[in-house]
Amino acid sequence: MKELRDAILEQGFGIGHDIVKVDMFLNHRLDIALLNHIGQAFHEAFADEQVDMILTIEASGIAAAITTAQAFGDLPVIFAKKSKTTSTMNNDVYEAKVYSFTHKTENYIRIAKSYLPSGVNVLIIDDFLANGEAAEGLAELVRQAGAHVAGIGVCIEKGFQAGGQKLRNEGYKVVSLATVTGIENGKLMLAGGEAQA
Amino acid sequence: MKELRDAILEQGFGIGHDIVKVDMFLNHRLDIALLNHIGQAFHEAFADEQVDMILTIEASGIAAAITTAQAFGDLPVIFAKKSKTTSTMNNDVYEAKVYSFTHKTENYIRIAKSYLPSGVNVLIIDDFLANGEAAEGLAELVRQAGAHVAGIGVCIEKGFQAGGQKLRNEGYKVVSLATVTGIENGKLMLAGGEAQA
Repeated sequence: MKELRDAILEQGFGIGHDIVKVDMFLNHRLDIALLNHIGQAFHEAFADEQVDMILTIEASGIAAAITTAQAFGDLPVIFAKKSKTTSTMNNDVYEAKVYSFTHKTENYIRIAKSYLPSGVNVLIIDDFLANGEAAEGLAELVRQAGAHVAGIGVCIEKGFQAGGQKLRNEGYKVVSLATVTGIENGKLMLAGGEAQA
Repeated sequence: MKELRDAILEQGFGIGHDIVKVDMFLNHRLDIALLNHIGQAFHEAFADEQVDMILTIEASGIAAAITTAQAFGDLPVIFAKKSKTTSTMNNDVYEAKVYSFTHKTENYIRIAKSYLPSGVNVLIIDDFLANGEAAEGLAELVRQAGAHVAGIGVCIEKGFQAGGQKLRNEGYKVVSLATVTGIENGKLMLAGGEAQA
């Protein structure tokens, strides 16, 4: 997606070999015009799928999830909540364990069962796809609910990490709007072309 | 705001004397059509103010901040990040301490200095106003930046807690789109009329 690629090249930068900084438009300061385009791009990419709701994870997935929901005609969004601790005593939630390679921590993510009915078609949206742990966790919540993953849309895929390939091998339709292929002296390298499916 | 009042009365409920549950449309599952209306209502309420950017706090303030930014013609949004720990060694951020009465915990909230320039006019948006700690913390970040608080917009004010009065006494223009005045046997009581300024 051209607008996102331009923003990454013009405003983003890399740190070391694997940290992609896009705080200035995607996950701290939010460029709303760009996010509107991102929502429209996900709508276009998943136009052939039945989508009943959008699922994401707090906090930085919420923005793209909202504009995607708007592009689909104001679908509901659910954002999974993160916690350091399990809630095994709470029968009202679906829960999955997610390891963060970025922060070297384990988190639990959960959603209230009542907001994810069985049988619905869920589009998973997130800002980043790196090792795929967050997307796998969200897909696990959908599985627990007896619902269906209509697809996985990510704004930026780190093509040099394993998550995208793993999720595609598992049969998910994964669409990333931009793919960072590497970092060279702080500069982000992008794969050519449009959305990478 | 009628749509929000209707949602609170039809879907929300209270627990005990002070917990307002609106998870089903405002801060876990997001009703995007309602949030679009909320953004338009904030735009209307602050139409006479100069607003250059929207400031909120992760995670549940982000949704209303985005639709408000859209209603203002796609203004940028910054969401402050929460942390259990201070970052006094980091000169690149503004930071304030926020006490959560809900969770009985102290958090630090922070934003990167580079995204909040001095002199800009900042509209603070959040989902709830109870004791006002979050809004005070956000206003403190704006003050540190040498920027100006154009106003404070909250979706739901707990009228039986002190934050709204405190912020208004301090001279801020505070607009809440619905005011819960109390909880009776699990039912939420609302103040009459439209937006409470």
